Amino acid sequence: MAVGIAEAPYLLAVNGIKIAACCAGIYNKNRLDLALISASPGTRIAAVFTRNAFCAAPVIIARKHLLDNDPLHLLINAGNANAGLGDAGYNDALKTCECLAGITGSLPTQVLPFSTGVIGEPLPVGKICNALPQLLGSQSDDAWDELSRAMMTTDTVPKGMSRVIKIGDKEITITGVAKGSGMIRPDMATMLAFVATDACIEKKLLAGMLQRAVEQSFNRISVDGDTSTNDACVLLATGKAGVPEIDGMDNEVAKKFMVGLVEVCTYLAQAIVRDGEGATKFVTININGGKDSDECLKVATTIAHSPLIKTALFASDPNWGRILAAIGRSGIDNLDINKISISIGDICIVSDGARAPDYTESRGKTVFEQDDIILHVHLNRGAASIQFWTCDLSYDYVRINAEYRT
Amino acid sequence: MAVGIAEAPYLLAVNGIKIAACCAGIYNKNRLDLALISASPGTRIAAVFTRNAFCAAPVIIARKHLLDNDPLHLLINAGNANAGLGDAGYNDALKTCECLAGITGSLPTQVLPFSTGVIGEPLPVGKICNALPQLLGSQSDDAWDELSRAMMTTDTVPKGMSRVIKIGDKEITITGVAKGSGMIRPDMATMLAFVATDACIEKKLLAGMLQRAVEQSFNRISVDGDTSTNDACVLLATGKAGVPEIDGMDNEVAKKFMVGLVEVCTYLAQAIVRDGEGATKFVTININGGKDSDECLKVATTIAHSPLIKTALFASDPNWGRILAAIGRSGIDNLDINKISISIGDICIVSDGARAPDYTESRGKTVFEQDDIILHVHLNRGAASIQFWTCDLSYDYVRINAEYRT
Repeated sequence: MAVGIAEAPYLLAVNGIKIAACCAGIYNKNRLDLALISASPGTRIAAVFTRNAFCAAPVIIARKHLLDNDPLHLLINAGNANAGLGDAGYNDALKTCECLAGITGSLPTQVLPFSTGVIGEPLPVGKICNALPQLLGSQSDDAWDELSRAMMTTDTVPKGMSRVIKIGDKEITITGVAKGSGMIRPDMATMLAFVATDACIEKKLLAGMLQRAVEQSFNRISVDGDTSTNDACVLLATGKAGVPEIDGMDNEVAKKFMVGLVEVCTYLAQAIVRDGEGATKFVTININGGKDSDECLKVATTIAHSPLIKTALFASDPNWGRILAAIGRSGIDNLDINKISISIGDICIVSDGARAPDYTESRGKTVFEQDDIILHVHLNRGAASIQFWTCDLSYDYVRINAEYRT
Repeated sequence: MAVGIAEAPYLLAVNGIKIAACCAGIYNKNRLDLALISASPGTRIAAVFTRNAFCAAPVIIARKHLLDNDPLHLLINAGNANAGLGDAGYNDALKTCECLAGITGSLPTQVLPFSTGVIGEPLPVGKICNALPQLLGSQSDDAWDELSRAMMTTDTVPKGMSRVIKIGDKEITITGVAKGSGMIRPDMATMLAFVATDACIEKKLLAGMLQRAVEQSFNRISVDGDTSTNDACVLLATGKAGVPEIDGMDNEVAKKFMVGLVEVCTYLAQAIVRDGEGATKFVTININGGKDSDECLKVATTIAHSPLIKTALFASDPNWGRILAAIGRSGIDNLDINKISISIGDICIVSDGARAPDYTESRGKTVFEQDDIILHVHLNRGAASIQFWTCDLSYDYVRINAEYRT
């Protein structure tokens, strides 16, 4: 049950992108589990992948294929992560690329494979290859919603967002979808996110823009602190909007585009947390007054990963001592705990490192009972700040992850 | 419900140590919640405390009093951590020391205060001071069991262990007790542990021996990754055994004592994990083949803190992909995942970074269904190894910590 999001909003087509999704039977259920994104020739692609040393076979192949060229096809399956299978997994992922290349008349290196699901089970290559003709035959401009559904694993809602940016009398569209619910502590990107735009963007700049957007969005969320083996975030720019190429950051169009890209990525990142496994609370953590953003991030992640804070959030229990204890163990050099203040929403709970004089348990309870909670921590030792998003730890998190493979 | 331990074994008196415990009403329940350990004059004391920057008032005072002298009295309460209260908390803890000093005719600096329980509630100084005469009047050699019960918070069983070391025709006794069940990721020592011996040990050596024992025991466990604000481990040596002073490590007596001390501390550390909040499994993690013990520890703690591994353990689900994924994100430089092997008990699950050829799900299930699980990870990149202990993450962990203050 996602916190504060229902279905994904209507997703706008992106000129130059065609999409299809189908049921290939990977889940042995009647649900979408295979999708294909095809880009018009000339589309530029940037991507960031998991930093987990144990990365899945499709991640290894996608990284490699991106070195060679700008691929034309992204093949995405749910239900199987194709990870932990050594050479066999690598060869299986490559087979699906070769099969798609054969049918479309492209090169295997022009296909990027993406997988998400259970680790350690062989990829059902036959089922995937058999479904490819159907997928290719049903591509349309308007299947972003189906794509977002085909990627879901423990997700309870599909996640997508569109933004339109006015450039004179023209428009640039950005549409993105993401999946992810557990094993979420992106150390580079979330589980899977695909964002496309019809803007025309110089290739190196595209990679830099994606990196910057990811830093502020997907790299600022955590559900359970576990970094996936399959994380990937891809940005495609088709150049079909009829707007001149963006080739540097020092102009209005680039800045407007960057704002739109960050908005789409932040919405998707937050949607993943709102749909976090078992989540009943969505928590925004604002860390202010740090010496630098690294130490702000340390404090934010220590809070976000503390099972004691997460269970207190689940119980709507304003157990602020656990927040102070987490800050205290976050590994900040020479932290003066007596300078710290903590507020939840507009209620000041801790000032000068101890319970605020006018704080009462019942005032704390009032804000902790809300679904959307904003936690402000002021370290009072510098000017750096960051924002981070997380959720609580509930019975359902345990249930979902205890039952995942049964 | 603790895994694999029932009640604490019979605890032997230590010559020179007198103990009492009583119900001071800190819990508003009819249970032991206040205890006093008094040591004979000349007893030497070593202690290690939490490294959490946010440490409780009694920790600050105990550290300070230990600088001045060898204290004679340890005053321990459960039900209130006396943390997060600023100067008021400090003054309250000091008052209890002054009160005990007044009655016993000692100095306030000869009292060490210890607290465990809820953070942020004022210490009930009156209740504690009122109970002191009763405590002092009921001290005996033989109240270690009562001490272990008076310290309990969410613990379900008291934890203690004794060892006797034969030295010629004489004996050295070591007896220790500990409490702890949640907020357990000691970064120096566990929640609270008190170990006493009648050996006579040179003061600096005593501190060194405690530090070494703690490194191998309390610093190798984790229940939930949360480091407490009140952790403390104290070692008292009364020198009453009639055995010559131990003043260096290069003799048989010192070595025998060290083995006994490590045994007691390891038993207590493991008992804390076995009684971990909601624990249904006790897991020994053996990391071998690391370049150094630091990287072995990184891998062990990443596994021990992974909610996905902990919930899989709870479900008896041999979801080894989650173990590989945790190793992959543990932050080891240039980790070659293809060299890693993983066994559970005597079943090899992963070899060369992928599923072992003869591994079957049903063989994995058999070992995962046991209460006591031994996980072996071989990194195959060096000669270092460490051992670490943890438990699973169950519904009851969430329940206990969601309901803790209600």
